[in-house]
Amino acid sequence: MKHFISITAALLLGASASAQQDLWGGSGTVSPEINADNTVTFRFHAPKAVKVEVTGDFLPTHKMETGRGTFDSPGTAELKEGKDGIWEYTTEPLESELYSYSFIVDGLKVKDPSNVFMNRDVNTVTNIFIIKGDRGNLYNVNEVPHGTVSKVWYDSPGLGMKRRMTVYTPAGYEDIGKTRYPVLYLLHGMGGDEEAWMDLGRASQILDNLIAQGKARPMIVVMPNGNAAQEAAPGQAAPGLQQPNMQQPRTMDGAFESAFPDIVNYIGLFSAAVLPREGSTSPIYQNLDEKLAVQFSKKPALYWIGIGNTDFLYQANKEYRSKLDAAGYKYTYFETGEGHIWKNWRIYLSEFVPLLFR
Amino acid sequence: MKHFISITAALLLGASASAQQDLWGGSGTVSPEINADNTVTFRFHAPKAVKVEVTGDFLPTHKMETGRGTFDSPGTAELKEGKDGIWEYTTEPLESELYSYSFIVDGLKVKDPSNVFMNRDVNTVTNIFIIKGDRGNLYNVNEVPHGTVSKVWYDSPGLGMKRRMTVYTPAGYEDIGKTRYPVLYLLHGMGGDEEAWMDLGRASQILDNLIAQGKARPMIVVMPNGNAAQEAAPGQAAPGLQQPNMQQPRTMDGAFESAFPDIVNYIGLFSAAVLPREGSTSPIYQNLDEKLAVQFSKKPALYWIGIGNTDFLYQANKEYRSKLDAAGYKYTYFETGEGHIWKNWRIYLSEFVPLLFR
Repeated sequence: MKHFISITAALLLGASASAQQDLWGGSGTVSPEINADNTVTFRFHAPKAVKVEVTGDFLPTHKMETGRGTFDSPGTAELKEGKDGIWEYTTEPLESELYSYSFIVDGLKVKDPSNVFMNRDVNTVTNIFIIKGDRGNLYNVNEVPHGTVSKVWYDSPGLGMKRRMTVYTPAGYEDIGKTRYPVLYLLHGMGGDEEAWMDLGRASQILDNLIAQGKARPMIVVMPNGNAAQEAAPGQAAPGLQQPNMQQPRTMDGAFESAFPDIVNYIGLFSAAVLPREGSTSPIYQNLDEKLAVQFSKKPALYWIGIGNTDFLYQANKEYRSKLDAAGYKYTYFETGEGHIWKNWRIYLSEFVPLLFR
Repeated sequence: MKHFISITAALLLGASASAQQDLWGGSGTVSPEINADNTVTFRFHAPKAVKVEVTGDFLPTHKMETGRGTFDSPGTAELKEGKDGIWEYTTEPLESELYSYSFIVDGLKVKDPSNVFMNRDVNTVTNIFIIKGDRGNLYNVNEVPHGTVSKVWYDSPGLGMKRRMTVYTPAGYEDIGKTRYPVLYLLHGMGGDEEAWMDLGRASQILDNLIAQGKARPMIVVMPNGNAAQEAAPGQAAPGLQQPNMQQPRTMDGAFESAFPDIVNYIGLFSAAVLPREGSTSPIYQNLDEKLAVQFSKKPALYWIGIGNTDFLYQANKEYRSKLDAAGYKYTYFETGEGHIWKNWRIYLSEFVPLLFR
């Protein structure tokens, strides 16, 4: 044993760390502060600012017209300047949820310097916080047994490259024994990568908590990178720290999807692009009726469809359900409010996982 | 097989992702841009700003006096306003390195909205970029075989809690075989946690690259959380997304350190707090002469000391080396410029790892 172990002791003292705080701008301001009544107080230190606002998905939305259609845009609320240049705003009591927000200081969108917790959604980063309670507790790290989360590289002969995936193995997986676990392949959407379900989707927290509550079977969750031209998430592959590109070439061209032929017995569609986009030539949309006939002839244990009622894909999903109905194919349907957002996908995962492998 | 696999398809279309970009402020500005001559251009879109500066560790430092002593403070450089409210600054050609920076807009320190890459250093977050070349290539993700990085929870009877650690296993580790690997326990400093060596220290990149070059033996690297009162990094343990506290109780009280008695044959001290701080009652500093006599009687294969010549611990390390010299204990000494910073610890890891397990 002795020859195989080495310790390095890189000891940092508090004095240095505090100095670094001075240099890098740790603010001392508490923000966001979640109050006992589930109101949230945002604070921002900006003595010279003229106007400080907060925008986030806890504020009422308004419709925004763009060349690409109408979208729900989150509202803004103004902070009021108090003493010592600290601006402040307190929300209404908020429902239990994971929320995202940014500050807007004299028109500039900035992150909260008092909050180190952020999520990356492709090429934008926002601060987050959790209101505990019903949903929020599912997304929180609680005192329950925790699974292992690994970033694993594997060889993909189909795509001709080494690729990175995230793998969740449930608590107890490493114990010596002969337990075999079922596998959930959890795929992100266009623009995401192998980190999206862990960060934005809180997948490991949802799995840890549902398994601990006895509501889900212990399972392995494999989260691959669905962008056929990309080896790994931005910053995690050569050529290094290159900014994310929203439009990944070859995504949804069928090369990645071909890795999953005919191997699934439980199927979930979360706000899915079920019918081809205009001008789409992707093979995944071809011969749809034939593919569905094959799929349903195998009597899947679960065919689950979830969508939000303001999703831009709502109508396409409705038409798709009509198609399934007409053919007599059985499915489970779960409709939520709101649209094409991670809040809904966290909810769908929380609803879907307890139904698996029963 | 069929019963054990499930796929969820959460498909996002480009239209939605682009909308999200509008909502959340993806800027379209390229920053930082690393030019062919290794100068770097920073850009910031701020049409209403009066003054925009950048601060970072690539700029000449100046001495800053504080109540706790004198520190090197990074300098600032002013951006110039160009057309469309885009401010811009281009550096001198920079040496190959990983650099950190922030913008200062009318006195407010803000992150670069065009750069999603950031490091958290305890309770502050800064943007980063890499200049490729000598050092930078070691810190970059290159086209080499990659190890697996896992966040693993384990039971700690000594501290009476479940705790989280980061584990690096080299490429090939998962292959079926009987290869046994040596283990490096890589400890962070005060204020850090089990994520520090991966994020700030670029440990997996350094290991991947050195192993691929044949300069280091494939090894397992275990990065525990050294804060005895803390189960896991901020946000990764109950009670959830609570802001990091610089002063962790019970850190360096000896409870954590007792997990590593007498098991090491290669020892590295990176900018180490080798002699007790004033008023320290920690048992780890007691009977130092006796402990050293025991340690060196076992003839460690390597006793390696690295420190920067402006580190506030430089003098203490000098006295410590005198003590070792007087006792005739053999060690390897590696001195760099600059002080108590992650740049140095990345260099020390890169120098230390090739010497291990030979």
